[in-house]
Amino acid sequence: MTNSAKPLGEFDLIERFFKERANQQLSQYPEITLGIGDDCALIGEEKSFNSNNLKDLAISTDMLVESRHFLPNADPYLLGHKCLAVNLSDLAAMGARPLGFTLAIAMPAVNASWLEAFSNGLFDLAKQHQCPLIGGDTTAGPLTISITIFGRVSGSQALTRDRAQVGDDIWVSHQLGDARLALGAMRLEWPLPAEELDAVAMRMHAPTPRVELGQNLLGVAHAAIDISDGFLGDLSHILRQSNVSAEVFIDQVPGSAVLNNKSLELQRLCKLMGGDDYELCFTAPPNQSDAIHALSKKLGLSLTAIGKIKPASSQLIELVDGDGHLLPENLSAQYLKSFDHFK
Amino acid sequence: MTNSAKPLGEFDLIERFFKERANQQLSQYPEITLGIGDDCALIGEEKSFNSNNLKDLAISTDMLVESRHFLPNADPYLLGHKCLAVNLSDLAAMGARPLGFTLAIAMPAVNASWLEAFSNGLFDLAKQHQCPLIGGDTTAGPLTISITIFGRVSGSQALTRDRAQVGDDIWVSHQLGDARLALGAMRLEWPLPAEELDAVAMRMHAPTPRVELGQNLLGVAHAAIDISDGFLGDLSHILRQSNVSAEVFIDQVPGSAVLNNKSLELQRLCKLMGGDDYELCFTAPPNQSDAIHALSKKLGLSLTAIGKIKPASSQLIELVDGDGHLLPENLSAQYLKSFDHFK
Repeated sequence: MTNSAKPLGEFDLIERFFKERANQQLSQYPEITLGIGDDCALIGEEKSFNSNNLKDLAISTDMLVESRHFLPNADPYLLGHKCLAVNLSDLAAMGARPLGFTLAIAMPAVNASWLEAFSNGLFDLAKQHQCPLIGGDTTAGPLTISITIFGRVSGSQALTRDRAQVGDDIWVSHQLGDARLALGAMRLEWPLPAEELDAVAMRMHAPTPRVELGQNLLGVAHAAIDISDGFLGDLSHILRQSNVSAEVFIDQVPGSAVLNNKSLELQRLCKLMGGDDYELCFTAPPNQSDAIHALSKKLGLSLTAIGKIKPASSQLIELVDGDGHLLPENLSAQYLKSFDHFK
Repeated sequence: MTNSAKPLGEFDLIERFFKERANQQLSQYPEITLGIGDDCALIGEEKSFNSNNLKDLAISTDMLVESRHFLPNADPYLLGHKCLAVNLSDLAAMGARPLGFTLAIAMPAVNASWLEAFSNGLFDLAKQHQCPLIGGDTTAGPLTISITIFGRVSGSQALTRDRAQVGDDIWVSHQLGDARLALGAMRLEWPLPAEELDAVAMRMHAPTPRVELGQNLLGVAHAAIDISDGFLGDLSHILRQSNVSAEVFIDQVPGSAVLNNKSLELQRLCKLMGGDDYELCFTAPPNQSDAIHALSKKLGLSLTAIGKIKPASSQLIELVDGDGHLLPENLSAQYLKSFDHFK
């Protein structure tokens, strides 16, 4: 329970006014097989026609606001790409096959060239993932983009956040931290040579949703989440919802050549706390390692085991350095701070 | 085709950059049985399990922006009600049974009392229509609320906009124009005694979505739309999409006791052009009149025939006054102007 005397953060807010209350009522609605609190909600088939062969509908929604999620004067083509990519990423984290999306957009004025570029970015990615636009609303207002996306997945196989099991390995796809490295350079938090910024900035502007990976992990992985708010923060959602803890070998988290040349401190900050990577973090039993390595080869996408799921413990995540030592508690606490849109 | 040299209105904009392009691609996606351009999109069952007994999924999305769709300092309880009501109204206009909704909301700061009232308004209406909140996103930003709603309907029976037939009667539910009368009084467009404003303002602040009516019209009505942007503008969507025209007996359009005491000119403006009523406009063959009157009695909701569907013609809508005379062309043209969020 949240104490109303202290300021509420985003997660408290969602919990208190929406999530708890919404999910309390769900037992009355047998068609809603999963409510708020995972990458997607799930709508099942009508009860009377239930069958294992029929697929559930996975649904996710997102809102992106200018100056908060993207810079004013952001390239409209890349913005169109990113708005859809982050939603496709939620489907990927569920193992769902994209089916379609709706777009609601507020914009200050009608600008044909902006709209053409934005819609090109959107439709190019939509086509790539066979995910058509099926409904929308446009209005005047501060630039705000809300997409709701739909996919198919078998509810019994879906990569929900609550299915991690003790003994699972923790995996991540590709590399983490480039989006944070680019953002920090743009914000002048640290210097970065122009050619290095060019090399990493597209990871922030045009993330690649791991849609094919997600679907291929059905039956292989137990739990999954996409890394949007920062690896440790996102992993903690899996841990809390599965009622387990984890140890993470932080210096095994894969990074790009550019990031791996930076100080260990900067690497850790970007890889562990950086958001906007939109890679998948998933857990799988050790006996699936061969299957995962084969999948990596098939998709041409590196997949790296970087931790272990352990029984529930007062310490949600233990961070282990390259020498096998636990990180000092104060340093560890710093990395474990979660992301909050209202702070 | 739109000429890019002239300013684009909302409808041009949606058509040009999103609707045409999205719908062109839909033939590749057999599961999307209806795309952009109706009250809802429709997702069908997976092809291999198609059956007449299974229901399609109806989907609609809306975005409401402060100062555009509601006043700054709007009562948060009523705002929560209205945000969901306008989406339920889209399901009603399709004849769909509510299934659930997602909420994406941007707000400038976390205000617990505002949120409590807003969520109360939202959940009270959700409960009334058995339509649970199943997903969401909250972020910082100018107050903007986007809801995507889901319902079940048999696609072959859905009250789409393209099914009106020549000879159909045009019906509206309850009364039109009170929301516009209230808005005009608040904007000081015309005077209205306080007790009269009180009587009509709730029609603007807390519209009643005609969800039960919509479902009861399946198999009875041919086409339907909800009146959100103004009766004649909304009716014109049915006419264009069904490739028909209409005559409307404008002085038979039902209004409240308050509105019916105003000048004929003000009545017509509010009833014909006023938005925000969220009543249903539907078309049905004359042999369904008895069934519609019986339905009216059953629901305790007046339903009034106010026009006729006619063959396609260069004049989309003919307005006929209380004496059976066609309105002069200049007056008629004034009422037929459509609503545009960007004008």
